[in-house]
Amino acid sequence: MTIKRLKQKPQEGIKGRAKGVLQRPKKMSPKELYNVLNAVVPLYFSMLLAYSSIKHFKLFTADQCSGINRFVAIFAIPLLSFNFISRINPFHMHFLFIAADSLSKLLVLLLLLFWSHLFKNGSLDWSITLFSIATLPNTLVMGIPLLKSMYGDEQEDLMIQLVVMQSIIWYTVLLFLFEFRSARNSLMEKTSSNSVKEERGISEEELVHVVVANSLAENEIQRSQSMTKVAPELEEEEEEDNEEKLPGIEELSKQQGVCESSVQVFSREDEIREEHEKAQIGRLSVLLILRLVCYKLIRNLNFYASVLGISWALISSRWNVKKPLMMENSITILSNAGLGMAMFSLGLFMAMQPSIIACGKKLAAYGMIIRFIAGPALMALSSVLLGIRGTTLKVSIVQAALPQGIVPFVFAKEYDLHPEMLSTAVIFGMIVSLPVTILYYMALGS
Amino acid sequence: MTIKRLKQKPQEGIKGRAKGVLQRPKKMSPKELYNVLNAVVPLYFSMLLAYSSIKHFKLFTADQCSGINRFVAIFAIPLLSFNFISRINPFHMHFLFIAADSLSKLLVLLLLLFWSHLFKNGSLDWSITLFSIATLPNTLVMGIPLLKSMYGDEQEDLMIQLVVMQSIIWYTVLLFLFEFRSARNSLMEKTSSNSVKEERGISEEELVHVVVANSLAENEIQRSQSMTKVAPELEEEEEEDNEEKLPGIEELSKQQGVCESSVQVFSREDEIREEHEKAQIGRLSVLLILRLVCYKLIRNLNFYASVLGISWALISSRWNVKKPLMMENSITILSNAGLGMAMFSLGLFMAMQPSIIACGKKLAAYGMIIRFIAGPALMALSSVLLGIRGTTLKVSIVQAALPQGIVPFVFAKEYDLHPEMLSTAVIFGMIVSLPVTILYYMALGS
Repeated sequence: MTIKRLKQKPQEGIKGRAKGVLQRPKKMSPKELYNVLNAVVPLYFSMLLAYSSIKHFKLFTADQCSGINRFVAIFAIPLLSFNFISRINPFHMHFLFIAADSLSKLLVLLLLLFWSHLFKNGSLDWSITLFSIATLPNTLVMGIPLLKSMYGDEQEDLMIQLVVMQSIIWYTVLLFLFEFRSARNSLMEKTSSNSVKEERGISEEELVHVVVANSLAENEIQRSQSMTKVAPELEEEEEEDNEEKLPGIEELSKQQGVCESSVQVFSREDEIREEHEKAQIGRLSVLLILRLVCYKLIRNLNFYASVLGISWALISSRWNVKKPLMMENSITILSNAGLGMAMFSLGLFMAMQPSIIACGKKLAAYGMIIRFIAGPALMALSSVLLGIRGTTLKVSIVQAALPQGIVPFVFAKEYDLHPEMLSTAVIFGMIVSLPVTILYYMALGS
Repeated sequence: MTIKRLKQKPQEGIKGRAKGVLQRPKKMSPKELYNVLNAVVPLYFSMLLAYSSIKHFKLFTADQCSGINRFVAIFAIPLLSFNFISRINPFHMHFLFIAADSLSKLLVLLLLLFWSHLFKNGSLDWSITLFSIATLPNTLVMGIPLLKSMYGDEQEDLMIQLVVMQSIIWYTVLLFLFEFRSARNSLMEKTSSNSVKEERGISEEELVHVVVANSLAENEIQRSQSMTKVAPELEEEEEEDNEEKLPGIEELSKQQGVCESSVQVFSREDEIREEHEKAQIGRLSVLLILRLVCYKLIRNLNFYASVLGISWALISSRWNVKKPLMMENSITILSNAGLGMAMFSLGLFMAMQPSIIACGKKLAAYGMIIRFIAGPALMALSSVLLGIRGTTLKVSIVQAALPQGIVPFVFAKEYDLHPEMLSTAVIFGMIVSLPVTILYYMALGS
C-alpha cells in the first residue's frame, strides 16, 4: 500500500503526556485531513465497487459472491492477521494501553450483566449484543490503515496489539457468552417441560451437559442442511469445518437424521455421566461450555492466525529469528489481497442484504449511539483513569469509534441472536463511521 | 510486495553493450539465485495453495471458484495492468527493445503463414496455435516480478512496455487471426454445399459477410446456452458482456432460437449488402473481420485497461500531471490483490482440469520446445540483429522463456481451437518454467 501518512511529530515526553488531556487541541490542517481521506476513501471505493457490481451490474451470482467471501475468510484475512501480528515485539507492548482497552470492555460487560441480572427489562440476549456493539470494532481492516494515516506509522503497533487481544481474548469471551446463553436457553426449555429429567432420572448438571451437546448436534444438522442455501456467508469456512468436529455425536446423529439425534446423544451422554459422576453443577457446566468454546475456536482460522502470529512474534523477538524471505513473500503476496478483498467482500455482503437498516430505524439509532458515542466514551474514561494521555489517548478513542467488526456479526448469525442488529451495525456503521471518526479526529486535534 | 531484488549494477555503456554478447557470462552467486527464488516461489505458493484447496481439501465449489476467477478477470488483472502501464513514460520507451520483440513475433508469424500456405502439412489452425505458444508469454503476472528480481527494478519498465504492446497490438493480431479463421472455415463449409450462394444469388464477398455474422450469432447462442455450465472460466466477463453486443442480430436470433438464427441474420445482411454493393472482395472481408475484432476488443477489459493506462501515461508524462492520491490508492488497494489472486486463480484452474497434460505427451513436448526454446531463440536472434546487447538482451531472452500467457488460452477456448494444447502450455508450462527460466538466467550470467 502506498497510503501516505502524516509527517511524524517527535514523541511527546512524560510531561507532554501528563498535560496532553487538558491541552486545547491544536487546529487540524486541511492537508492532514486530506491525508486521512486518501487512506480511507480507497477502502470505501473497494466496498462500493463490490456493492454496485451486484446492485447495478449483476456481475456476480450469489454462489460466486460466496466464493469471493470464502477466499477472504479462509485465506486473505487470516494471512493478513498473521502478517501483522507476527511482526510485533510482544516484549515491548504498550501494556497500559492494553489494560485501558481491557478495562473499558470489562466495564461494559459488568454494566450489562448487572443490568441483565438486576433489572426487569434487562436480558442476557441484549447484553451480549450490546457488548459486541459497544466494544468490538473493526480493528484489523479499518483500524490499522485509518489510525496509521491519522497518527503515524508507529501507532500501527498499538492497533496490532488490539487485534491480538481482540482475536485471542475478547472473541473467546464473546463465544463463551453465546455458548452460555444457548446452554441456559435449552436448559430452561427442557426444565420447564421437565420430562427428560424425570424419565431418565439424571441430575441437573448432566442435563446441562446433555442439553448442550444435544443442541450442538441439532445445530450441526441444521447447518449441514442449510449448506446448499445461497447466501454471502462470511463465515462459511466454519460451516465446512464443522463436519469434522465431535465426530462421535455428530456422525451418528447425521446418519440417523434429526429426529433420532437426541437418542444418539443421550447414549453418548450416559458414558460422560459415568465419568463425571461426582462433578459439581457449576463446575461441570462451565467446563462443558468451555469445551464447546474450544470446539468453536479450533475451527476458527482467525484464532489460529492470531495464536500462530503471536507465537512467531515471541520466538522472533526472543531469539531474533527472522522469517525466511521466501515464506515472508509467500504470505505477503496473499495477505496483500486481504485489505482490498475484505472491503470488497463487505460490499458484496451489503448488496446481498434486503435492507441496509435491517433492524429498523429505532434500533439502528440506538446501535449507532452505543457504537460511536458510548463505546468511545467508556474507552476514553478507562484510558484517562489509567493515566493515558497524548497521542495514545487519541488513538484509544478514535479506534473505539471505528465501524462494527465483522466477527461479532458472524457469531450473531451463527447463534441467531439479533443478526439483523449486527448486520445493520456493520453496514450502516460503515457509512456512518467515515464522518464520525473524522469528526473525532478533528475534535481531538493534531 | 516486499520482494527483494538484486543489487543494481551500474548501467553498462555503449562499449559494454557492444561486446556484451560476446562476453563470457560472469558466474552467478548463490545469493543472486536465492533472491530470484524468493521472488518466484511465492507466486507458485499461491498457485499450489489454490490447487490443493480444491484437490485435497475441497474448500471451494466450482461456482465459488468461478466467482474468484471472475473477480480476477474483471477487477484484479485489469487494475493491475492499468496500475503498471499508467506509470511508465511513453516518451522514454526502449524503442529498440520493442522493435526486437515485434520483429521476433513477426518472424514467427511469417514463418508460420508461409508454412501453412506452401506446405502440405501446414495449416492455419496450427499456425495460430503455434504463434500463441511461441510468442505470447505471461508478461504481466510472472514476467514483472521475475525479471525485476533477476535484473533489478529498472528492468520493470521494459516488461511493462512489453505488456502494453502485447495487450494493445499482439492480442489484437491474434484475435484477427482467430476471426479470419472462423470466417474462412464457415465460408468453406457453405461454399462446398454452395446452396446458399445459388439460392440467393449473392456475391462471394457478401457471403463472407453473411457467414461471419451468422457464425457470430450462432456462437452467441451456443455461449449463452453454455453459460450455466460449471467451469473455471477465466474469461467469463466476456461471456456476460456478449449479451450486449450486436444487439440487432443477436437479440433477434436469441428470440427465435438457434434454428431460425440464419434467417434473421440474412435479413440483416440484406441491408448491409445494399450498403456495400460496390465493395471489393478483399476489402470487405478484411473490414468485416476487423469489425468483429473490434466487437471483441470493446468487451475486453484488459484492452480497455491498457488503452486507458497508456493514455494516462501519455497525459501524465506530457503535462506532468499526477493521479490524485485518493484515486491512486483506490486502484492500488485492489490491484495489490492482482498478483496473488491471479496465481491463485491459475491454481484453481489447474485443479479443475481433468489432466495436467490434456493434449497428450507428444504435443506437450512439442509445445514446451516451442515455448521454451524456439521462442527465446528467435527473440535472441531478433535482438542481436537489432544490436541489443548486455542486460537488455538478457531480459529479452528470459522474458521469452516465461510460461504461457493466459489470454491466448482464453481465446483458444472461445474459438475452440486446440484449447487442450493451450491449457497444457499454461499449466504444464508453469511447472516447467521455474527450472527453465532459472537455467536461462544462470546460463546468461549476471
